[in-house]
Amino acid sequence: MNYNQMSDAEKKAELALLLEKYKDIKSQGISLDLSRGKPGKDQLDITTGMLGVISQGADCFSKSGLDCRNYGNLDGIPEAKALFSELLGIAPSRIFIGGNSSLNMMYDAISRAMIYGMGEGNIPWSRQGNIKFICLTPGYDRHFAICESFGIEMISLELGPDGPDMDEVENLVCNDPSVKGIWCVPKYSNPTGTVYSDETVRRFAAMKPAAPDFRIFWDNAYAVHDLTDNKIKLANIFDLADEYGTVDNILYFASTSKITFPGSGVAITAASEKNLAQIRKIISVQTIGHDKINQLRHVKYFQNANGVLRHMRHHAEIIRPKFEAVISALENDLGDTGIARWTNPKGGYFISLDITTGSAKRAWELAREAGVTLTNAGASFPYGKDPHDRNLRIAPTFPPLSDVKKASEVLTLCVRICALEGLLQK
Amino acid sequence: MNYNQMSDAEKKAELALLLEKYKDIKSQGISLDLSRGKPGKDQLDITTGMLGVISQGADCFSKSGLDCRNYGNLDGIPEAKALFSELLGIAPSRIFIGGNSSLNMMYDAISRAMIYGMGEGNIPWSRQGNIKFICLTPGYDRHFAICESFGIEMISLELGPDGPDMDEVENLVCNDPSVKGIWCVPKYSNPTGTVYSDETVRRFAAMKPAAPDFRIFWDNAYAVHDLTDNKIKLANIFDLADEYGTVDNILYFASTSKITFPGSGVAITAASEKNLAQIRKIISVQTIGHDKINQLRHVKYFQNANGVLRHMRHHAEIIRPKFEAVISALENDLGDTGIARWTNPKGGYFISLDITTGSAKRAWELAREAGVTLTNAGASFPYGKDPHDRNLRIAPTFPPLSDVKKASEVLTLCVRICALEGLLQK
Repeated sequence: MNYNQMSDAEKKAELALLLEKYKDIKSQGISLDLSRGKPGKDQLDITTGMLGVISQGADCFSKSGLDCRNYGNLDGIPEAKALFSELLGIAPSRIFIGGNSSLNMMYDAISRAMIYGMGEGNIPWSRQGNIKFICLTPGYDRHFAICESFGIEMISLELGPDGPDMDEVENLVCNDPSVKGIWCVPKYSNPTGTVYSDETVRRFAAMKPAAPDFRIFWDNAYAVHDLTDNKIKLANIFDLADEYGTVDNILYFASTSKITFPGSGVAITAASEKNLAQIRKIISVQTIGHDKINQLRHVKYFQNANGVLRHMRHHAEIIRPKFEAVISALENDLGDTGIARWTNPKGGYFISLDITTGSAKRAWELAREAGVTLTNAGASFPYGKDPHDRNLRIAPTFPPLSDVKKASEVLTLCVRICALEGLLQK
Repeated sequence: MNYNQMSDAEKKAELALLLEKYKDIKSQGISLDLSRGKPGKDQLDITTGMLGVISQGADCFSKSGLDCRNYGNLDGIPEAKALFSELLGIAPSRIFIGGNSSLNMMYDAISRAMIYGMGEGNIPWSRQGNIKFICLTPGYDRHFAICESFGIEMISLELGPDGPDMDEVENLVCNDPSVKGIWCVPKYSNPTGTVYSDETVRRFAAMKPAAPDFRIFWDNAYAVHDLTDNKIKLANIFDLADEYGTVDNILYFASTSKITFPGSGVAITAASEKNLAQIRKIISVQTIGHDKINQLRHVKYFQNANGVLRHMRHHAEIIRPKFEAVISALENDLGDTGIARWTNPKGGYFISLDITTGSAKRAWELAREAGVTLTNAGASFPYGKDPHDRNLRIAPTFPPLSDVKKASEVLTLCVRICALEGLLQK
């Protein structure tokens, strides 16, 4: 029943009932965790075969003849570039293979911009006074943490169902030269699961920024992380940018953290040849090279893009039921209450739940007290502050399915309690 | 015979003879490389067993219970800290385990200092105007390249047989607050093989720098890289610094790049708990964590410090004959000529050769034309400029022994030719 249409007496009766239930759950002493966007053990197990594919010296040679056990090769072995190229539709000449973390590559990209300037010849960001990034909300907390760490002002824009409102984005990017970047997770956005429409991607590619050192931070973290066989295709921003002659505006990131192993995967930066020349020059001072054995391990295990896609179907089979369990609890328990809306993503690692304004923190706290840990309320917003205090991020992949089910029930219970409390106070 | 005591006629005769020999060698079309301080294939082969020690899920758990295949753990798994702790004599609480490259950790340390300040609360280096590092020469070119990249002024000091002249170092560090760092490779220095004396290390530990954000960059790259069983012990700078209450002045780096695999090893930063607190806070924005499976792979393979030391004896057995071949060629061909002096290191990866002033570039060029590649003349000096143009760095580890022998003969021939040419021009 729609809570907004209940009489106060009905609300009170419902709340009493729910509090009784809550008390009962609390007494059970459960301890469940929906806070972390990380693979479950069963997912890690299906990848573990990769660890054994390189076990002797003869396994260690790149097809270029390079002994991957030794120094040499700054930007990735050719077959690893070829694998990412095929998988993501990006020319190998635009791919720089790094270490284990695309987050690290994003952080370093900004760090380099602060010190050397973004793009050869541009003034270092650290000497340009106040600079700004556009942050789409709700979004990825670690993107926002990077901005905060470097003292970059964050401008929040709401993420819509097809991506950001491109009128707003263009208005900022094309008029204000202090706007230096925008964080995008264009496919299965963290946490909403949004996939940018072709039109959105095209407008990103078409943008003519006011600042010569503006970059689109295109974090394609979930490029192949589909939950269903009905894969949603993201338009290729490099192809479109080539049309518009804007390819230097893009810094593209991806990794195998949620394909193989978080922490032991392979990350890439993709960028125009011109951008990569500057990046390569600076990184050649920072390191002699990244872990080529691990690059080779990935290539030997997957062989080609199809190998990766096959593997991703196994991941989907494992985590889809967990997503379904959350969605099912949300539908069953909140579907007709009128107090919440949520995303039903076809990929990625998260579900975004919007509840009654002003009650996300309280719901988080109630859940915590009942033994269910959620990502901190507000985490998906710059400075950790949700202006409406209504968003909760649900990360269903890590716990076993039974835990996801139980935790979802606790969550919806807490959401209902908060909503009724709020309505009764009005 | 001592070239300096020859008559001009004798010099001319000798030169003619040598040029004949040189012509003969040139006609052989050889192609040998003594330029790179990297392990040979035979060294890599003795470590390859490490690749197989983790091959299934059950292998992937840290003794802390952590699944090393997943996210979690920023600064290294406990058993990896324990291994480095035992090996280097540093408390685990002072060890931060990073990715595959200590160079990367040094670069990042300076990058952080530029942006956030070195040490909590200090002004970022990028906002302090001109800052300086002391560079001991000859030294490690990649250290100097980092300074150059960040625009840090380099002050050259000559490295003596026991380390730098500590009067000079103290004079700079303790009086000039714009001096922010000094690069040290305290054991088996690159390229001289110098080991700092106990007294030198003690004076480093005792220093009271003028700048609160001065740091000793203690790159202990060759901590366990002894060539002989007569290991030279380096004093423990942390122990001494604890005596003097100066432990915050030290940033210590090491890696397994030349223990296991260059590029696929494990690197560490060691620092005071106070310094590490700042480092950890910043790096937690940069990355979720480093490759824990590779950390575990190292631990499982070596078990403990003795395992590493046993392994290093195998390395020594392989590369000692290469060092001996170079030294033997230097002694035989240049020993009585009075035109060269060289180091005879007991560890590390290099031999440093000083020849007649003003002739290093010419000798390098002659060697190159004869098919022998040496590290660029001047590479061991800031900005690649050897003020005396006399130093050559010899890296004997990578080529097979027969190549090392042949290349050494070509090198000494070129050195003799240059010396005679120079003497005849006087």
